[in-house]
Amino acid sequence: MEEPAIYTPPLARLIEQFQRLPGIGPKTAQRLALYVIKRPEKDVEAFAQALLNAKKQVGVCQKCFHLSATSVCDICRNPQREPDVICVVADSRDVIALEKTREYRGKYHVLGGVISPMDGIGPEQLTIQALVQRVSAEKTKEVILAINPSVEGETTTLYLAQLLRPFTKVTRIAFGLPMGGDLEYADEVTLARALEGRRELD
Amino acid sequence: MEEPAIYTPPLARLIEQFQRLPGIGPKTAQRLALYVIKRPEKDVEAFAQALLNAKKQVGVCQKCFHLSATSVCDICRNPQREPDVICVVADSRDVIALEKTREYRGKYHVLGGVISPMDGIGPEQLTIQALVQRVSAEKTKEVILAINPSVEGETTTLYLAQLLRPFTKVTRIAFGLPMGGDLEYADEVTLARALEGRRELD
Repeated sequence: MEEPAIYTPPLARLIEQFQRLPGIGPKTAQRLALYVIKRPEKDVEAFAQALLNAKKQVGVCQKCFHLSATSVCDICRNPQREPDVICVVADSRDVIALEKTREYRGKYHVLGGVISPMDGIGPEQLTIQALVQRVSAEKTKEVILAINPSVEGETTTLYLAQLLRPFTKVTRIAFGLPMGGDLEYADEVTLARALEGRRELD
Repeated sequence: MEEPAIYTPPLARLIEQFQRLPGIGPKTAQRLALYVIKRPEKDVEAFAQALLNAKKQVGVCQKCFHLSATSVCDICRNPQREPDVICVVADSRDVIALEKTREYRGKYHVLGGVISPMDGIGPEQLTIQALVQRVSAEKTKEVILAINPSVEGETTTLYLAQLLRPFTKVTRIAFGLPMGGDLEYADEVTLARALEGRRELD
């Protein structure tokens, strides 16, 4: 006779679903599933509905490719955002990180990744053509490149800088010692970047 | 004009739902939600369905009160499990933990908590009456108390021992140094318990 399963099947299936999420191991998945089945039915229904709605309703903005439930996103439609500055990022989560600073008042452009020949991702797999069209059509004054300083990110930054310089001013975000960071514990590459990017005090 | 939200509404609602789960903070909730909306639609539907099914189908076994999708659970129905040994635990997750050891071959009884007058939980809020009925009806040979050694757990253990001793042999699991533990770093209470529970070597 087969050893009976530890979990009753509907519970086992829910644990398995939680375990598919990134960073959720078997113990956490079990804890979450046991928590969920003790919630009132309407709470669980609200969770299930939120999953379905988010998947069905959230697409990308046809202008900047940021996640949006409308064809053009809130940022692109907002008349209070500077229309002639575009911050270029790899992913929608970078837009979210920058928005949380509440410092940036321009628009965005989400590439959908970085150039990575090893993974078969060239410029044509990204939204680069749309970006060039936007920059030339919208008479953009400045493109700020805010791409992670990985090998692929640097390649992408240099590629975009070359491509866009004929149309507009191209800048990139600063790299250096993080605020609250400690010179002594900073890695050499970061320190080298911090020295290289030094600015005159006035 | 109101500051526009950082997340598009269906995404915000999904993040909020993830954040209600225990141990999931805002950053993890965002990561999980962004992961989910990039999954194929059928995967998200399977997740939502697993939530609804687990909530609708999983109840408790009418005999031992362990989580079960059937009126009597797999363990209670399994003829290969010793019918006259009952291990008493506070919660279904303790059954799961014990089952994972694959050492125990008897049955269980889930109390649904521990006696805690501070929280208004007395013996009548737990499945203690059903346990007494089972023990006397099933001619149980041994009841093993496997309840966490907290203040409330100890109270519950002592209460149950008194209550059940007229009917059957009552034992409790051993407390002591955990395997792989280090005498030097063990707390005093654990060490005292380990001394108290010493056994003769033969």
